[in-house]
Amino acid sequence: MNRWNVIAPDLGLAAAITQKIDTKTKPLGALGQLETLVHRIALVQQTLTPALHRPHVVVFAADHGIAQSGVSQYPPEVTHQMVRNFAQGGAAINVFCRQNGLDLTIVDAGVRGSFADLASVRNEKIAEGTQNFAHFPAMTTAQCTEALERGARLADELHASGCNVLGVGEMGIGNTSSAAVLMHRLTDQPLAACVGRGTGLDEAGLTRKLAILTNAVDAYPTVGSNPLTALATFGGFEIAQMCGALLRAAEHRMLLLIDGFIATAALLVAARLAPNVLAYCVFCHESGEQGHRVLLAELGGEPLLRLGLRLGEGTGCALAYPLVQAAVNFLNEMASFASAGVSDDSAT
Amino acid sequence: MNRWNVIAPDLGLAAAITQKIDTKTKPLGALGQLETLVHRIALVQQTLTPALHRPHVVVFAADHGIAQSGVSQYPPEVTHQMVRNFAQGGAAINVFCRQNGLDLTIVDAGVRGSFADLASVRNEKIAEGTQNFAHFPAMTTAQCTEALERGARLADELHASGCNVLGVGEMGIGNTSSAAVLMHRLTDQPLAACVGRGTGLDEAGLTRKLAILTNAVDAYPTVGSNPLTALATFGGFEIAQMCGALLRAAEHRMLLLIDGFIATAALLVAARLAPNVLAYCVFCHESGEQGHRVLLAELGGEPLLRLGLRLGEGTGCALAYPLVQAAVNFLNEMASFASAGVSDDSAT
Repeated sequence: MNRWNVIAPDLGLAAAITQKIDTKTKPLGALGQLETLVHRIALVQQTLTPALHRPHVVVFAADHGIAQSGVSQYPPEVTHQMVRNFAQGGAAINVFCRQNGLDLTIVDAGVRGSFADLASVRNEKIAEGTQNFAHFPAMTTAQCTEALERGARLADELHASGCNVLGVGEMGIGNTSSAAVLMHRLTDQPLAACVGRGTGLDEAGLTRKLAILTNAVDAYPTVGSNPLTALATFGGFEIAQMCGALLRAAEHRMLLLIDGFIATAALLVAARLAPNVLAYCVFCHESGEQGHRVLLAELGGEPLLRLGLRLGEGTGCALAYPLVQAAVNFLNEMASFASAGVSDDSAT
Repeated sequence: MNRWNVIAPDLGLAAAITQKIDTKTKPLGALGQLETLVHRIALVQQTLTPALHRPHVVVFAADHGIAQSGVSQYPPEVTHQMVRNFAQGGAAINVFCRQNGLDLTIVDAGVRGSFADLASVRNEKIAEGTQNFAHFPAMTTAQCTEALERGARLADELHASGCNVLGVGEMGIGNTSSAAVLMHRLTDQPLAACVGRGTGLDEAGLTRKLAILTNAVDAYPTVGSNPLTALATFGGFEIAQMCGALLRAAEHRMLLLIDGFIATAALLVAARLAPNVLAYCVFCHESGEQGHRVLLAELGGEPLLRLGLRLGEGTGCALAYPLVQAAVNFLNEMASFASAGVSDDSAT
């Protein structure tokens, strides 16, 4: 039984959208990926005059038991410290959202320690971090369900506020490990193709991370490719909340901005639960994390940016947003050959 | 004798810039190309707190005699028509400059017909288009010198107005042919690697274009790799004015935004006259025109965007500009590990 009701966009408008794009004063196809992007947006919104309202990035933060196994370059307390940095406006995602006019919400999905002193951190804490899945399942089924539901409720609120563009980002020391194992379980990719350097492991660190995760996967021989079981066993609270937010936002026909490796892993889980969610996605960038390129290919995602980013936080969403706006703007604002009195090549 | 006096940025600040980038609250190198970009900008401006002022795109338009030989998908009168479209605000470059806060100037560098009725088109007309270089040199030496000088004077004016970021774009039916031959003459690339589909030639059209350009190049056996001779023989008035503008802007230590294939060919000429100009450049995108990737590699340029654009007009500059701003902003606005109380991995 699948409770997510994501409808595929009706394709009835497709030809009219193409026609509108092709009569703009430019050679056919000359705006490249911006043309396919606005075609998608127009289908999502079912209109020839799409518009982006109150774009919003939500950063979901959580701690990971697996970080205790030494899979990251950074100590686990950095998750908590970085949430404080977000709340004070000093992180990269703050800078890029301010610049490009996106609203930003910071969510404690399951970080160790309290943010009661910080009004700007939204408390959706499931627990003080997941269990270490090297030894125990990361979360209980009830926790997983609760995390999906809390993410979904946040999407409900944003939709109700008039937002129709949701970008998801994350912070969580150790979460490339969760994302890599989820990718391995939910695709046919070998674990080695899914595991990367995260925040900057060297060769020895990467070898160690792969060994730890190989042992962890082997410890759960009965966890197959069921998305919810895999999510509960290997996921994180921020990944589960992202997944719920993406699914509910797609139910509301919102445009989804997908960030880097971990956000894309959350989308992978979502897509296994409701494949139509992919039609609502803008793949903002291909990160420097090695598994991301392969994961994007698995999902048929064509990224807008390839800047070697590997920061997370939703930074790829915020940086790509002006391109998304540009795609919408050219469709709405450019003159047509006829209106501008420019000769179309089809006449020659 | 070279009259262009472009100074290489002093590298004395390089270590301090790197240090400032590396103490921001993010893993080392996690902002990828934005980090190398702001390093370059800080060197150009010789400061640890760079700032972008009054960014400006100039679109240089001109007609090309070679267009009479049938090298383009579009009839030559489209150059004139598109300048009118620019003046009326209906082209892609208008939309993207409005969106991203760049000023825009449209220059008639040598378009057939008058724009006396349009106050917003700046008259820098050298002649009513170049000669067809299949039969005659495109311009005289005096015309070439005048075009460089007019471009340089425009850069002087922009600098005097407080602008420190210049993006150059172009419009001119037939100008991928000029750019391709210039690339062939000023690099070791065979003509076939330089000639592409322009605004959308099919296979037969491309074959015909290559044959026409091969004959044209063969008609000037004494034109070697002297940049000014090549520019006068095969160039366009818009290419020469772009070249002069880029060189003078670099003399003023302005940041240069480089658009697509034709703008990059203008930069190639500039770089052969004053190699230091390259240190001032931001390579905004890699276009869909086949020679562009190779030309960027010749110049050591790492493009910010790869969206399959092939429109010109400076659209790549306007679309990439928010990334340039983001690079500057993260350096100026992000907290450091120390100021935010976040653990640096060097401590682990």
